[in-house]
Parts: sequence; C-alpha cells; structure tokens
Amino acid sequence: MDQKHSELIESMNRMLREVLADAAEHPVLPSLPPEELAARLELELTSEGRTLSRVLDDLISLAANTPRTSSPHFFNQLFGGRETAAVVAESLSAILNNSMYTYKAAGCQILLERELLRHMAGLVDMPNAEGSLQAGGSLSNLLGLLLARNRAFPQWRERGPAGQKPVLYTSSESHYSLPKAAGILGIGRENLRYIEVDERGRMLPEELERQILTDERCGRTPFFVNATAGTTVRGAFDPLNELARITRPRGLWLHVDGAFGASVALSPRRKHLLRGIELADSLAWDPHKMMGVPLPCSVLLTQERGLLRASLSERADYLFQENDEAANPGDRNLHCGRRNDALKLWAAWRFFGDSGWERRIERQFALASYAARRINEIEGLQLVEDPPCITVCFEVLGKSSEAVCRGLAEQGLAKIGYGEVRQRNVIRLVTVNPELGEKDLETLLAQILAVSRALPPWAG
Amino acid sequence: MDQKHSELIESMNRMLREVLADAAEHPVLPSLPPEELAARLELELTSEGRTLSRVLDDLISLAANTPRTSSPHFFNQLFGGRETAAVVAESLSAILNNSMYTYKAAGCQILLERELLRHMAGLVDMPNAEGSLQAGGSLSNLLGLLLARNRAFPQWRERGPAGQKPVLYTSSESHYSLPKAAGILGIGRENLRYIEVDERGRMLPEELERQILTDERCGRTPFFVNATAGTTVRGAFDPLNELARITRPRGLWLHVDGAFGASVALSPRRKHLLRGIELADSLAWDPHKMMGVPLPCSVLLTQERGLLRASLSERADYLFQENDEAANPGDRNLHCGRRNDALKLWAAWRFFGDSGWERRIERQFALASYAARRINEIEGLQLVEDPPCITVCFEVLGKSSEAVCRGLAEQGLAKIGYGEVRQRNVIRLVTVNPELGEKDLETLLAQILAVSRALPPWAG
Repeated sequence: MDQKHSELIESMNRMLREVLADAAEHPVLPSLPPEELAARLELELTSEGRTLSRVLDDLISLAANTPRTSSPHFFNQLFGGRETAAVVAESLSAILNNSMYTYKAAGCQILLERELLRHMAGLVDMPNAEGSLQAGGSLSNLLGLLLARNRAFPQWRERGPAGQKPVLYTSSESHYSLPKAAGILGIGRENLRYIEVDERGRMLPEELERQILTDERCGRTPFFVNATAGTTVRGAFDPLNELARITRPRGLWLHVDGAFGASVALSPRRKHLLRGIELADSLAWDPHKMMGVPLPCSVLLTQERGLLRASLSERADYLFQENDEAANPGDRNLHCGRRNDALKLWAAWRFFGDSGWERRIERQFALASYAARRINEIEGLQLVEDPPCITVCFEVLGKSSEAVCRGLAEQGLAKIGYGEVRQRNVIRLVTVNPELGEKDLETLLAQILAVSRALPPWAG
Repeated sequence: MDQKHSELIESMNRMLREVLADAAEHPVLPSLPPEELAARLELELTSEGRTLSRVLDDLISLAANTPRTSSPHFFNQLFGGRETAAVVAESLSAILNNSMYTYKAAGCQILLERELLRHMAGLVDMPNAEGSLQAGGSLSNLLGLLLARNRAFPQWRERGPAGQKPVLYTSSESHYSLPKAAGILGIGRENLRYIEVDERGRMLPEELERQILTDERCGRTPFFVNATAGTTVRGAFDPLNELARITRPRGLWLHVDGAFGASVALSPRRKHLLRGIELADSLAWDPHKMMGVPLPCSVLLTQERGLLRASLSERADYLFQENDEAANPGDRNLHCGRRNDALKLWAAWRFFGDSGWERRIERQFALASYAARRINEIEGLQLVEDPPCITVCFEVLGKSSEAVCRGLAEQGLAKIGYGEVRQRNVIRLVTVNPELGEKDLETLLAQILAVSRALPPWAG
C-alpha cells in the first residue's frame, strides 16, 4: 500500500480513537458564550502550514468543544444518535468523492441512488414517482414549490414576472422554509396564507377552503397547498385526504412537508398518520431525521413525471455526455456538482432492512409515550398533549421553559429546546435517538426538576 | 471504550484498508452501460436487514465499481485528487453530525466557519464581506443572483411579481447555473442576455455596454452582470475592472462566478487574473475544485452587508434561541439544517497554510503548461490556445474528440471529457490533481494517440 494510503488509515484511526474515547462524548458541554469560546481556541488560518499530526491534534481538540449530537443527553433537534453503517458509508463517500450529476463521473453510485428513490416511492404509495436528493429539507420544500409554480404558470420560468397573482397556503404551525422559499422563488412571501389549525395543531380544511374561495373571488390564482406531516414543534400531521379533496378538483398542487414525519411510512402501525399521501403531488422526506443517517439526506418525490427536468434542465455539452439520459440525474436537480448523500442511506437500509426501520420507528414512538406518561405522573410537570409523533411538549409548572432549557445547557447536563404551542413556551423533548433508555429519560426529567427548583417563579 | 465505538473503529478500518488496497484505486474502470452494471450488482433494498460485516462487503464491492476521481488517470472534472487532512476532517464532521444553523447546535464549528469566511474574504480583497457556505457552486451563483434581485427590486421578496422587467447578463461561455438560477428565482431565463466573448473566451465589455443601452431604451431594468473567473471549458477570466466600469456607475450588481477560478487568489503570481475583484458585489468560490477538499465546499461572499439576512431570515422561535445573532449563521443561509462543510477546508488550510495553497496552485498551473507544451510538440495533436488557467483544450487532428474520449473510457485507460471551443469539439484536460506527474501526462497523451489511431478519420 502506498504511503499516502497508510497515512490516511493511520490518521483516521487516531482521530476515531481519540474523539470517541473523549469523556465529552457522553455529557454535553457546558455552554460558553461564543466569543469566550473563540478566545480559548486557536482557530486562526495563517501563512505557514503545520504537520498532519498537529492538524489531528487540532481536530481532536475541536471535537471536544463541539456539542455531541449523538449523546443520550442531546434532545435539542429532530436528529440524534449515530449509526455505524451510515457513518462508514459517509466516510467512503468522502474518499470516493464522486459528483452525482452523471453516470460517467459517479458510476454505480447513481444506480443505488435510483434504487433508493424507487424503494422510498413505493413505501409512500407513489410507485411511479420521480425524485431527487437535496442538501436539506428546506431545499426539498423549495423544489416542491418550484415544480408547482412551473406547472401552474408554465411561462414563468422562461419569461419571468408577467402579471401573475399566485397564492399559496400552509398551516400556521408549518416550517419557516415555506415563506422563505416563496421569497426565494419570486412568488412573494405576502402571497402565502397561513391557515388556522385545530387544537392538536392540524390544518383546518374548512379554513383552507374558505380562504381559497376568498382569493379566487379577488381574481388571484391559488396554486399550491403545503400540508405538513410532522410539524416541527408538536409533530402534528395535517389531514391529507381532506386537503386533497379540496386541492384535486381545483388542480392545486398538494405538497407534503414530511421532512420530519414521512419516516412513519416505515412502520405499518404508524403509517395511518400519512393517510392520503398517495394523493399528494410531491413529498419532502428527510432520512437524516428519524432514520438517523448523518445530515443531510433529504428527498423530494413527485408524481408529476418530467417536471423536474422541465424545471431544472439546461444544456451543458461538456458535462452531459454519453450514456442514456435516465442514468444522468444532473438535469433534474438543483445542483450541478453534488455530493453523494445516497450511499449512507443505502448502507443503513441494507443493514436495517425495512423491518429494522420499522423497529426503530416503533422504539422512538415508545420512548415518546414513556416520556409523556412519566411527565403526566410527575408532580410539577404538565404535559401539553399526547404526542402525535416523537416530540413531547411539556412545561414545568410556574417556571419559564426558556430558563429551564438554558439552565440545563449552562450546567452541561443536557441540550433541549423550547417552542411555542398555543401561545405558550413549552419544552420540546425529541426522542429521535433510539438508543436512549428509559433511564436516560428519567435522568433528564430529574435534572429538569432540579434545575427548576433553583429558578424564580414565573407567571408565564 | 464502549462496544459501539469499537465497532465503528473496526468497521472504518476494514473499509479503508480494503477500499484503498483495491487495484481499482489506480486505473479507472472500463465503462459499462448503466443497465449492464446494474444487472451485475445487487443493489436491492429488502425487508430483512443483514449483518454489519455483509454491509461492509457491499460497500467494498461498490467502491470497486465506482470511478476513482483521485486516480492519476481521472481528468474528467474540475476536481480530483485526495487530501488526507480534509478527508479525516470530513469523516469527523459525519461523526459529530452538527447542523450549522446555530451556535447551540454546532458550537465551535460555527466559529471556525466564521474564521474561514473572514480569511477568504481578505484574500480576495473584500475584507468586510459577509459570506455563507452552499452545497455547491450552482447554489452560490443562485444566491448571488438572489441578493442582486432583492437589492434591485426591494419589494419582490415580499410581494412577488408586479410588472418588473429585469434583465441580466453573462458571457456566452459562462456556466449553465446562470440561466438555471434565473428560471428558479422567477426572473425568467429569456431575460438573461448572452454577451459575446473575444477570441480567448472573455466577455467583451463593449458588447455588454451596447446591450445594456439597448435594454434601457426598451424600458427594461438591467440589474445584474455575471462575470466568470475561470470558465468551465477554457478557464477564461472575464475582465473585472472593465466590467465594473460599466456596472458601478449604473448601480448594477457585479457577481463573479469564481467557482472554478477564484482559488488563483491563493497565488500572488496568478492573482492578477482576478484584477478588479474588489469591485465585485459578490463572489462564488468552490474550494472543492482547485483546493481539493471533498465536495461540496462552496462559498458565497458579498460586500453588501445585511442583504443575506434581509433575503433569507425568517422567524423560528424553536430554533434561533440564545446567544448573539452574529454566531447563528442559520438566518443568512439557503438551508435550515446544514452540514458542516467548513471543517474539512479549515483542516486542509491548517495543514497547507496560505503558502502551501500557493505551491499547490503553482503546481497545477505548471502541469497545465507542461501539457500544453507537449501537445504543441507532438505531431497529430493541436493545441487550441495557451491555457489561461488549468484546463488544456486540444484536438487530435482528423479525429473526433468525442470518439477519443469514449475510447479511453471504454478501455478503462482514463476518464477525460470534451467541450466546445469556437464551434469545435475539443478534448479538455484538467490538471487539478497536483499529484500528477509529468509521466502521467505523457502516458495520457500516448494513450490518446493510440486510441485515435484505431478511429476512422473525421472531418469535423
């Protein structure tokens, strides 16, 4: 083996051993203000280089100062944990370093990406869907909206603004990527209508219909409805069947933001949450959330075949050469050069199989149920609602949720966030890491009570 | 060390040893049609999972069927080679798996990204620029165009189409991401004017000015000029000073697509190619090309401070919590969840230092010069022009460039592409891998002659 290869193997080994052995792997770090941390670390880029060994020292020391999202004390985001097969595959992607635009440049990686999209489409009852991978859920939502815009206004891509009066709809508890995308795509943030939700955070179909009728009467062109499968804070699922009953007869595009919740399709027992998904025109699905592969891994599926290419394809003789078009995904993607986000998910899928994913999803739901039950039992804690998915929202009676979360972080006990439900700030516990035990949840709840006792009373 | 950690270390070791030892690391693979390769591999996702060891077998076998972009026989893209520090850091990113929206979730990784952007801005004489990382150069160009659109038409983001008559400009040899972005952002592909180039592929300023005057006379609103620093096929650099003399007095946004060529800023001897860069409003720069870090690593810098936030920020109470705004880059980025593309570049920079990057760029230019000189000397080969950057364009006299490239790939000798220069299809040799030796180039040229001899004559 040549020297460069040995060097890579040895360096990787040392990094792995020291980073994973580090005690910081377990607790999350006490939080320091950014400028204080910056002053402690030596981050400067300078004229002179240094040895590989010193760069490894740097990396190991940085890792010790980075929040550990795989820790059983990290509940802050919709992702967490670490899967060996996925991490090894992700490192292999970096070593192979193929760009996923053409079969010529990426070979069989293109083929396994195709298999992944095909298999995922089948699981959500869209067997003929086309798809593409994006570098995150916000871009998958943006792409769904772009397709809808281009179908409803076929001249827009070519001619630009020409008196269109587009209107689009999403629930008041949906993700911020919707207004953001409306702004980016030139549709206009003000043309996005926020539809009220019911007491469980689900879009009210009758409110949607009423608003569509109002907009039509004003001479506007409703064209797009975003339904959320798993809202960011509460994990609510909008009623797809009922929404489709409104969108279909009118020819409106129904997009499902399942970035968080589409993975419930992997569990026959939970799939009912997606009832009606086969009626959607597009779906965003982030395997980097409930499926635990390193981020990003985000998929957009659409049943309107040909529209990805019609919206994104350009002529580029120097790039799209040889082989059949079907094998070159570069002309139906937001990107030109694009990293291989497929291999890690493919490897994890081979390891788990559909049946392993099912067990994983069930485990996450079981942990959420356990946490909800214990919160109900423990005096001083108040559950907001039975969790529809795997985020558990609750309050400490008489204490500020924000102050509790900050206290936990400052003491390095746990990272957990808060969000708004019915105008109240509540703690949001995400049970996405299937390696959590009930003991980890008990520890967290006890820490929350302990931190709360030291806080002043709060009227809310 | 716990069992899961040992398992990760052992698995990573096995993958590295077997993938790097594989003979396929050296030659590029003979190309098979996609369906033929798909039939040979077993790519299916099934209900049952399999052992980690069998998944590793899968990964190793896939690697053997994936084009080796780090091979000295790979000349097909604007990237190539492999840097140990960057690959180790990239694997560490996957292990840490932080999302780069907030300091709370990513800690010191946010701080080193900030240092990177600061240092890069200084190198291109934009010391006060703001920046953000995107998942590829196409998105960085899109972001530059978005900022320009929002500055020129301040109501567009909020209100959508309202009679705007935008016009934008780029050279006839620029990258396809420009029309693509104009389509995505709702500006309209037809509103993009292609400006003629001189005999060396550089945009003609007088043609640009003439076209702007025409558009103004028609009541349109010119607002954006894209200049390319390193065109995709020829590596031409548009004359930034002369273009700025046209854009500045009119308040037009000057964006520089330096995805390929901005890295010449690392070499004092080559930096003159970017003369006038300090007059640009934004710059796209892909370190995953000439700087050799695993893709993607793409930076957008802008001198119009505050416009990233004004174009991309949304309210998200559950996410943007605690700490000062400056440390939370999530509100000035296209993404919500975002992978850490900074660490690999930071690690490589610590290893090389500015001085090491300079040597790398010089080496790439020296290899391009060597190839050009040899092509000039060898009978039967015809150099198109002295390479302005590190792509060397040439023809085999009387043979089809396309057929030559296909022949090399089919025999598994080399991967190299072709492109169009002055209506002729030419072979494009990219000397981006600094580990290439002159011998590798001699081997390639000899193989090209050998493959060509077997081809029928071609009139062009």
